[in-house]
Amino acid sequence: MHRTRVTVVEDALDANNTIAAANRADFDREGVRVVNFMSAPGAGKTTLLERVVRDLPGVRVGVLEGDVQGSMDADRLASLHVPVTQLNTDPSFGGECHLDANMVRSAIPALPLADIDLLVIENVGNLVCPAEFRVGEDVRVMVCSVTEGEDKPLKYPLMFRTCELVLINKIDLLPHLDYDLERLMYNIDQVHPDVERMTVSARTGEGVEAWRDWLTAVATREPAGVA
Amino acid sequence: MHRTRVTVVEDALDANNTIAAANRADFDREGVRVVNFMSAPGAGKTTLLERVVRDLPGVRVGVLEGDVQGSMDADRLASLHVPVTQLNTDPSFGGECHLDANMVRSAIPALPLADIDLLVIENVGNLVCPAEFRVGEDVRVMVCSVTEGEDKPLKYPLMFRTCELVLINKIDLLPHLDYDLERLMYNIDQVHPDVERMTVSARTGEGVEAWRDWLTAVATREPAGVA
Repeated sequence: MHRTRVTVVEDALDANNTIAAANRADFDREGVRVVNFMSAPGAGKTTLLERVVRDLPGVRVGVLEGDVQGSMDADRLASLHVPVTQLNTDPSFGGECHLDANMVRSAIPALPLADIDLLVIENVGNLVCPAEFRVGEDVRVMVCSVTEGEDKPLKYPLMFRTCELVLINKIDLLPHLDYDLERLMYNIDQVHPDVERMTVSARTGEGVEAWRDWLTAVATREPAGVA
Repeated sequence: MHRTRVTVVEDALDANNTIAAANRADFDREGVRVVNFMSAPGAGKTTLLERVVRDLPGVRVGVLEGDVQGSMDADRLASLHVPVTQLNTDPSFGGECHLDANMVRSAIPALPLADIDLLVIENVGNLVCPAEFRVGEDVRVMVCSVTEGEDKPLKYPLMFRTCELVLINKIDLLPHLDYDLERLMYNIDQVHPDVERMTVSARTGEGVEAWRDWLTAVATREPAGVA
C-alpha cells in the first residue's frame, strides 16, 4: 500500500510563511520586486522614500503603507504622484505592531502590480515583530537612526540579522550627539557582519544617491524564486 | 434555589488584566508604587532613569528592565548601585515586543520589594503593544523624543492615551531639527488633551528636576487600589 507522510505545520509563523510564499509568487508573476522596509518609529523611512521614489531611472515604484492608524505617510507619498495603498492594522484594541503576510495578501487586489516594477512595503515602526513575519518580499531594508544610540543591534538582533541593507540615517546630527559610529558598526558586526551599510541624511540628502542606486538595482534583479 | 452568574473572561487581554491586578495587589501589600515606563527604541528611557534614580529624596528605587535580549541597560543602572532585575523576552524566535503581566509576575520573587518604595518597569522599546498590556502599574509614563517627528501621537494613539505623563526628550537637539514643538503639543491634544507633559534633555539635564519631583510624588502616593 502506498503511504506518504505529511508533517503538520507547526505554528503561526509557518502559516505566515505559507502565505508569504503565495504573495511572492504573485509578485514574481507580475515582475514586481518587493522591499520590506522597516525601522523604529520616527527613524525616517518615509522621508528616505520621498527622497528617491520619483526618480529611480526606468523604475516605476509603488508603495504599500503599513500603519496602526491614519494615512499621514501615505498622503505625503501620494503628493509625489506615486501610487500608494494604505494598510491599517487597528481593527483590534491597540492595533497590530507589524504587518504579516495575510495583511499584505488582503492588499494585493488593491495594488497596481501591472503598472509598477518595484513595491516598497513600509512596515509599522517597530524593531521586534516586523522582523519575525515575512510578507513576500525579495529584500529587507532597515533604517537605523543615529539618534537611537549605538546599542540597537545588540538589543534587537533579529531585525539587523535578517536585513540585506542597513541605512544609518540622520548623520547630519552627528556633530550634536555623543555618538560613536564605529561602535555602531562594531555592534552590527556582532550580529550580521556581512550586511551592507550606508550612512545617509534624509534631511540634507547626503548619501541618498547611493540609496537610490541600490534600490534601482533591486528593481532590475531577476526573481530569486520563493525560498 | 440560589443562583449566581459568572461571565466568562473573553480573551488574552482579560487574562492579562487578571494577572496585572494580582501583581498590583502584591505591590500594594508591600507599599511599593509602580511606574510602567515606555517609549520607542532609543528615545532615552535609561538615560532619563540614570539622571534621577540616585537622588529621589527619601525614596528607594528599584528597576525591572525589560529587553528582548541582553542586559546593557540593567548594567548601566546597576553601576549606579540601584537594585536592578533583568527580564528578557526572547525564549521565542524573535522575542516578545512587550512585557505582559505574566512576565512581570514571574519576576516578582526576584524583586526586593521590602527594600524599595518605587519600582520602575522599563518596558521593551515599542510604541504599540506595551500600551495594550497592563503589568500591575500605578502609573504609565512615556518618553517621546523630538527626533521621532511630531506625528507620533496620531500614529500610536493608544500609547499616548493611556499615559499619565509624556516626557518630551532630547530638546537640546531642537536647534538642529526641522521640528515644530507646538505641532507635537497639538497632536497630543488630539488623542489625550489632559495628559501632563514635560520637556527634558537627558543629555544636558534640562527639565530633569521636574521629572525627579514628579517621580518622587508618585512614590509617596496612596495606593489607588486595583481598578
